[in-house]
Amino acid sequence: MFEVHAFATPNSLKVPIALEEMGLDYRLVPVNLRQGEQKTAAFKAMNPNGKVPVLIDRSVPEEGDLVLGESAAILVHLAEKTGRLLPKDGPRRGKVFEQLFFHASGLSPAFLQAFMVAIQASPQPEAKALALAEVERTLGVLNHVLERHSYAAGDEYSIADIAHFGWVWRHQAIGATLDKFPFVASWHEEIATRPAVVTAIERTVALAQ
Amino acid sequence: MFEVHAFATPNSLKVPIALEEMGLDYRLVPVNLRQGEQKTAAFKAMNPNGKVPVLIDRSVPEEGDLVLGESAAILVHLAEKTGRLLPKDGPRRGKVFEQLFFHASGLSPAFLQAFMVAIQASPQPEAKALALAEVERTLGVLNHVLERHSYAAGDEYSIADIAHFGWVWRHQAIGATLDKFPFVASWHEEIATRPAVVTAIERTVALAQ
Repeated sequence: MFEVHAFATPNSLKVPIALEEMGLDYRLVPVNLRQGEQKTAAFKAMNPNGKVPVLIDRSVPEEGDLVLGESAAILVHLAEKTGRLLPKDGPRRGKVFEQLFFHASGLSPAFLQAFMVAIQASPQPEAKALALAEVERTLGVLNHVLERHSYAAGDEYSIADIAHFGWVWRHQAIGATLDKFPFVASWHEEIATRPAVVTAIERTVALAQ
Repeated sequence: MFEVHAFATPNSLKVPIALEEMGLDYRLVPVNLRQGEQKTAAFKAMNPNGKVPVLIDRSVPEEGDLVLGESAAILVHLAEKTGRLLPKDGPRRGKVFEQLFFHASGLSPAFLQAFMVAIQASPQPEAKALALAEVERTLGVLNHVLERHSYAAGDEYSIADIAHFGWVWRHQAIGATLDKFPFVASWHEEIATRPAVVTAIERTVALAQ
């Protein structure tokens, strides 16, 4: 049984998707960001960066509890543990990591910044345009990748798709559309209907209700 | 022989450090960012995200050339290839990935943003303060980690240290100091004197000369 400290956020969602895809049991522990619970001393003892999600893995007792922050690091851990959604070697493995780090350093910060602007009471038009331009640039990169292959890191669904989906799923919330990115749009539509993804979204959204 | 397309930048530096630490032969191919060479079609064919560094690994001919962007993905590839600087399993492996992704999504974007502000002709004081606050927040997280362990992901030097070092090495260029972060300061001083790091810095800095 895995324990996932999370809230109804794009980064949180990635972990339940992976756990559902892998058929693993887990318990979601809500961390109410609206009440700043991610900044408490108790939470920061798990993740000094003060961000959800955090995974607790107690399945190897002799190693003690593994307490892991960073959604993509959690995806890698689960994939290596189960042998699922990450090639064990070869060039496709490198491409999964390339996409995970492009997500972490590129697409995810761009979407987060646009989200922070979108939720302001009266966002500056310039700031909004600047943020959306970077969102579109990163979506353009992903579209280029998906034009050549069915999935983010080749022709097989992997944890790189789960990472990208976490944020692309929320494109409407930041005022973006996928109209100019047809390969992203069809990829998004396909992944959104996977049973594991549907269940994970339901459980993650329920954390804020 | 590895080929590294790079310039004198923090993200580029990480790759020669890893190659030097691992005793691997490599050739640096300069990509002059001042002349926008990372935005050319030829470069974007290697990395559609238009960023240095890019590694080309031709060592497994039957798999074709592996062309890999994202500095941290390159570090993972080299570590797995050599069995160096990344534990093969166990909780410390998870912690290396946690720190790599904290770097990619947290510390690195904070430093990059502060750098972009610092090089403006007349930066707005508010934008500068905001950028430096996030730099200090991420340095605080790293300091907290290094207070408990000698290195970023435990008591052994790993590719997570190489990733963080790439940007922390440039703290003066963005107007930050390490005075408030004594554990980061001593870690930085130690890593900066490693022979592999000294050589990698010389070779990387020379790309802009």
